[in-house]
Amino acid sequence: MTHMVRDPDFEARIRASFATQKFMATLGARLERVAPGEVTIALPFRADLTQQNGFLHAGVVTSVVDSACGYAALSVMEPGADVLSVEFKVNFLAPAQGSEFLAVGRVVRAGRTLVVVSGELLAGGTVVALMQGTMIARFDSPTV
Amino acid sequence: MTHMVRDPDFEARIRASFATQKFMATLGARLERVAPGEVTIALPFRADLTQQNGFLHAGVVTSVVDSACGYAALSVMEPGADVLSVEFKVNFLAPAQGSEFLAVGRVVRAGRTLVVVSGELLAGGTVVALMQGTMIARFDSPTV
Amino acid sequence: MTHMVRDPDFEARIRASFATQKFMATLGARLERVAPGEVTIALPFRADLTQQNGFLHAGVVTSVVDSACGYAALSVMEPGADVLSVEFKVNFLAPAQGSEFLAVGRVVRAGRTLVVVSGELLAGGTVVALMQGTMIARFDSPTV
Amino acid sequence: MTHMVRDPDFEARIRASFATQKFMATLGARLERVAPGEVTIALPFRADLTQQNGFLHAGVVTSVVDSACGYAALSVMEPGADVLSVEFKVNFLAPAQGSEFLAVGRVVRAGRTLVVVSGELLAGGTVVALMQGTMIARFDSPTV
Repeated sequence: MTHMVRDPDFEARIRASFATQKFMATLGARLERVAPGEVTIALPFRADLTQQNGFLHAGVVTSVVDSACGYAALSVMEPGADVLSVEFKVNFLAPAQGSEFLAVGRVVRAGRTLVVVSGELLAGGTVVALMQGTMIARFDSPTV
Repeated sequence: MTHMVRDPDFEARIRASFATQKFMATLGARLERVAPGEVTIALPFRADLTQQNGFLHAGVVTSVVDSACGYAALSVMEPGADVLSVEFKVNFLAPAQGSEFLAVGRVVRAGRTLVVVSGELLAGGTVVALMQGTMIARFDSPTV
Repeated sequence: MTHMVRDPDFEARIRASFATQKFMATLGARLERVAPGEVTIALPFRADLTQQNGFLHAGVVTSVVDSACGYAALSVMEPGADVLSVEFKVNFLAPAQGSEFLAVGRVVRAGRTLVVVSGELLAGGTVVALMQGTMIARFDSPTV
Repeated sequence: MTHMVRDPDFEARIRASFATQKFMATLGARLERVAPGEVTIALPFRADLTQQNGFLHAGVVTSVVDSACGYAALSVMEPGADVLSVEFKVNFLAPAQGSEFLAVGRVVRAGRTLVVVSGELLAGGTVVALMQGTMIARFDSPTV
């Protein structure tokens, strides 16, 4: 899918915002590819991110896919926009095991305010989790 | 809602499982109340859990509500069961700001295998996020 | 929960809109109670609304709960607003069997534009389905 | 995606089940393509299926996408299985306007009991709605 870019500086804006998401640093997540309507975040496995079976906690999986989807949405928003998650839904398809994970977020439909996104967490060739959600552009105070 | 307890040792089992969720320790989350069909987890604010506006990251919010919902589901499962998240949906209602948060998970309907849950994150009297999801009882290997 | 009413004529507006939802007439659904932030729709069972087991089709269940949630949202919107579904999520808890069903929609959080709703379908005392979703106020053309 | 077929008679089984979904006949929906892991249903526009703006009601959209997803799931289940919707989530992307609609359901991951599905409603080249959900195989009584 090709998406119209409303802000030519979208990549710099996304990288700057990601750098201020302290929780991404806490997880050890790295912002990788930033393209119009698609963003990839890498997350190396760490034992302190696990649930009771030694796999990544569903919340960790959700965190990196949510950030990837949010920044995919931000990539097609207007200059000056900030992005917040309105809602998302995640299905967990397989245990999140492996040495490194890739979270990919993609824009499905970009409205002026609401952006529908789709995301997944990959472990090697396996889709671990699938997200469908809604992001919102904010231009002022960060309240929904 | 009253829920039938199938395992009289459910509280000990839940507290033991929570203690092995290393990610809950990483977040600084504490397991508080454990009752049949309802579990509460407390999470103090920490700056390293935030997104770009200084609020709790949506993924952190989701993580503690998911664990509260999962353990609420486990409280009504049979002895020997482990619990995994099949899927959940979260709506974000207000910025996650405050000094301490409470995640409450509740059983809506308990089947033998699938348990439907409802959860929320509270910041003082404010509902920050609302979850609706499905948990599954596992008796063997931790694959979905 | 108490909700602020922004349009004193909300009930007349909702009843007029419901009367134009031809699909509600096709299903045989009746608009019952209209209160600030809460709307109830009744649906008598009919064999031509069923799936392969003789229960109400999941889509029929969803239809009446969606309309109940949409009008609950409309009850707290400003004069002149129309309402559209942004998204919803439904868990099916029990077979939709019985002679009459009640769909109840409730406002969880009312923003100026987005309204988060919760809904259920009741068959007697049994909760058949649970919805969590987002409605949007529209003031012009009916495009999202 | 290629999916393993566990029942060589899956197409006949799906067409027979669809014929017993009286609500599909009520809507005027036709079962079109049945392939392993992918099912298409066609729905001509009718004025009695609309909401207050003259577009297809969100519940109608959901109904045909749910049936398409359910039968996509059934196509990869074992002989003798029946299918029920556990839960689904739908995002509405554009008004459902046009003379004919196509609902496409696809299997994302097929477990022995739970099948994760993805679906969409198309109006010409436009994606009107996007579904992500979970179906369950039933071998006995139709209770979840």
